[in-house]
Amino acid sequence: MKLNKTMMTDLYEITMAQTYFDDKAFDKIVYFDGFFRVLPLESGYAIMSGVDNIIDYIQNINFDNDDIEYLRSTNKFTEDFLDYLSKFKFNGDVWIVPDGTVVFGNEILITVRASLIEAQIIETTILSYLNSCIKYTTAARRLVEASNGKPIMEFGARRADGPEAAVLASKCAFIAGCVGTSNVMAGKIYDIPVMGTMAHSMISAEDEEYDAFMKYAKSFPDDANFLIDTYDTIKSGIVNSIKVTKDFLIPNGYRLKSVRIDSGDLSYLSKQVRKILDEEGMEDTKIVLSNSIDPYTLTSLLVQNAKFDSVGAGDNIVAPKARVGVVYKLVAIEENQEIVPRIKISNEALKIVNPGYKKLYRFYDKETGYALGDVMALHDEVIPSEEFTLIDPLNEFNTTTITNYTFKELQVPLFINGKLVYEDPDIREKQKYCNSQMASMYPEVKRLEYPHKYYVDQTQRLIDLKKDLILEHKKQFEG
Amino acid sequence: MKLNKTMMTDLYEITMAQTYFDDKAFDKIVYFDGFFRVLPLESGYAIMSGVDNIIDYIQNINFDNDDIEYLRSTNKFTEDFLDYLSKFKFNGDVWIVPDGTVVFGNEILITVRASLIEAQIIETTILSYLNSCIKYTTAARRLVEASNGKPIMEFGARRADGPEAAVLASKCAFIAGCVGTSNVMAGKIYDIPVMGTMAHSMISAEDEEYDAFMKYAKSFPDDANFLIDTYDTIKSGIVNSIKVTKDFLIPNGYRLKSVRIDSGDLSYLSKQVRKILDEEGMEDTKIVLSNSIDPYTLTSLLVQNAKFDSVGAGDNIVAPKARVGVVYKLVAIEENQEIVPRIKISNEALKIVNPGYKKLYRFYDKETGYALGDVMALHDEVIPSEEFTLIDPLNEFNTTTITNYTFKELQVPLFINGKLVYEDPDIREKQKYCNSQMASMYPEVKRLEYPHKYYVDQTQRLIDLKKDLILEHKKQFEG
Repeated sequence: MKLNKTMMTDLYEITMAQTYFDDKAFDKIVYFDGFFRVLPLESGYAIMSGVDNIIDYIQNINFDNDDIEYLRSTNKFTEDFLDYLSKFKFNGDVWIVPDGTVVFGNEILITVRASLIEAQIIETTILSYLNSCIKYTTAARRLVEASNGKPIMEFGARRADGPEAAVLASKCAFIAGCVGTSNVMAGKIYDIPVMGTMAHSMISAEDEEYDAFMKYAKSFPDDANFLIDTYDTIKSGIVNSIKVTKDFLIPNGYRLKSVRIDSGDLSYLSKQVRKILDEEGMEDTKIVLSNSIDPYTLTSLLVQNAKFDSVGAGDNIVAPKARVGVVYKLVAIEENQEIVPRIKISNEALKIVNPGYKKLYRFYDKETGYALGDVMALHDEVIPSEEFTLIDPLNEFNTTTITNYTFKELQVPLFINGKLVYEDPDIREKQKYCNSQMASMYPEVKRLEYPHKYYVDQTQRLIDLKKDLILEHKKQFEG
Repeated sequence: MKLNKTMMTDLYEITMAQTYFDDKAFDKIVYFDGFFRVLPLESGYAIMSGVDNIIDYIQNINFDNDDIEYLRSTNKFTEDFLDYLSKFKFNGDVWIVPDGTVVFGNEILITVRASLIEAQIIETTILSYLNSCIKYTTAARRLVEASNGKPIMEFGARRADGPEAAVLASKCAFIAGCVGTSNVMAGKIYDIPVMGTMAHSMISAEDEEYDAFMKYAKSFPDDANFLIDTYDTIKSGIVNSIKVTKDFLIPNGYRLKSVRIDSGDLSYLSKQVRKILDEEGMEDTKIVLSNSIDPYTLTSLLVQNAKFDSVGAGDNIVAPKARVGVVYKLVAIEENQEIVPRIKISNEALKIVNPGYKKLYRFYDKETGYALGDVMALHDEVIPSEEFTLIDPLNEFNTTTITNYTFKELQVPLFINGKLVYEDPDIREKQKYCNSQMASMYPEVKRLEYPHKYYVDQTQRLIDLKKDLILEHKKQFEG
């Protein structure tokens, strides 16, 4: 999966770079924030991921001879600049929120401090990783939350946006708490448990469903999982499953591990199948459900007391009908050793960028450990340890004063002067971290429908800075 | 982009293969159809694509030593079988609908005839290419149709499901009729025109918007495109654009090529900007609009007589909130040199597979050239040339008898005995073909909202075969 992704950048990143090059702006240091504005899937939370991809991408940036030749062929760039590009490396600083962290709208997921050219060229690929990985991880976690402890297996490869996206999705699903994937390449690359049952085609390829089950049982006697809905779950699938169990598995000292139901009314069928299996003394045979299961279906199944042990989920992890619109905005520049905040104005209040080099903090109740809210502050603000007032940036009258709290900065340093300074945890550690992150959230934030809106507040200084900058620009146009 | 994608397969494809291997079913020849059931995006049509990816994938299938080692480590497979896998190649036949073809629900986009093992192992990656490429191409074409001839540029890389998906999307958008992409890697790989303007950050990095425009103009005097909405489109952006044009471009013999508006009310602002530009004698400066433009917004803009020359579209091409659920179903097996149809039953009528080795035909009105409807027939049916009755498979009373028609088979042979037999057209040819395909569709099918449902009918023989197979299975359970 090591592909040179240097050229995966928008043309304007390179034309702007040519301009900065012509302007000799190599030492112009800027700050960019990456954030999304609105939570996807009407979710109360999102889960950060993509850090490993960003590390890999930045470490391997390199315009090779072929790339330079191609850029030359566009007749847009000077030879001096192409020569500069051929030696291009990222030498800046990156702070990032670690994989598995619960995150919210407008939070600075990534902050880049670098020369204007360097900060700009890495934009496109970083955004595509964040937009996809956060989408997958969030969608998967919502299934994990809805399943009330029943394992979720990710079976989505075929519905992904191509093979590489499938591998990304499998990785993200595991971080989010899925127990494994059907995707063999993801299993190999990330050492995620691979799992699966059988396809309908295996049954329709045989004259009799019984034969298909028997052949599978003979090849995998200790891992026999039958798909029972090809013809008729109750009249055929479960009948043949029991026959093969009695004819072959039990006489040879094995048990039927599971049956999977992939169509029909999963609540009704699962209860029927459970009853039949139990009557046959097959209480240990598990029931797996699949068929475009989303968190809402899953909740309904549990409410109706459907009998199942695990879920195979595909399109609702790898192809949720959702977008995470992470954007990357310039928020400050350095001038004469000073950090000067910058802003992008918009008629839509929500789209005005939060200016300045900032830090993101999460506050926890010292007693319960629950997260109370997040606050963005300017980088040099000192957070008091006894009492603190969080201010809603969209309604300054909406304040919350807290005491008896702890707090934690959410970003960690990833690159300093182009050097990786972060030890990216193992994928299993990320999964554990995600679980602990979710455990620190109030249940109200995690509610599937109409969740509580978690506080993403700001300090008075940041709010004032933003207002000042807006007024300054307003004055400028109006004379 | 040549990545070995052999391992991008669901585990069950390989466990089933182990079973077939144990069963010595190497010579069991089967037929699989790939099709989607429902058109995405409430569209009246979809556009086929992904053929080049499937060619590349199948030609490069190879489980390398690393892959075999990984599979061995799962303790699921026998050494004999792993040895077989290490020599695995695809030796079967594939028929496919060419890229750029207009396609509809239930149509056989791909048919695979191969040994059971081979047909099964290629399923996952083929589906992920079809599901993603058809989604992108269809979404892009809907924008192209809505734009009434105004060029659409694809700017979506940052919103794609990772860098490789971004490249797929750019390719698909071009096939669908977009004029170019911002994605430099796609430009390089597919020789698609690359285009772009500038980012807001370029303006906010400077003290004055004027300075940013001036610097860009100096670097790209013959390709000056200014983004004018960073502070205020009317009060600042267009004012500074005109200043730089007069201060630098015109005195040096250049013109301002375009301005881009990326926020605010695009209809109102574009009309104002057009008026101001025209008053300044800058009638030749084009207006580019962007900001999550979808076919509906685009239609509204045209209805309101917004003044623009082209559109940059991103998320509505690379991340449409839509899925194309292409599935891959076994429809026949060969037994004693005979093709025996197979079926997968479901309680949901729509989900019952159309059995048998089939062909897909499109009928055209001989006078107008418009497509009249498509018909699936069993492979050995002869299509009469004088009069033909199309039958709606969901309502047999709904028939249409046509005369004075021509017809065409939609699938072409792609692989025969594992050998590529198709010359995949150049991407520009595919774009032209897509345009001609769309031109052959009645406007009612292409309508953005509540389109006419195009006929995807079947022959009486196919309908009867399906009924017979369903009854046969029904009898089996009830007898």
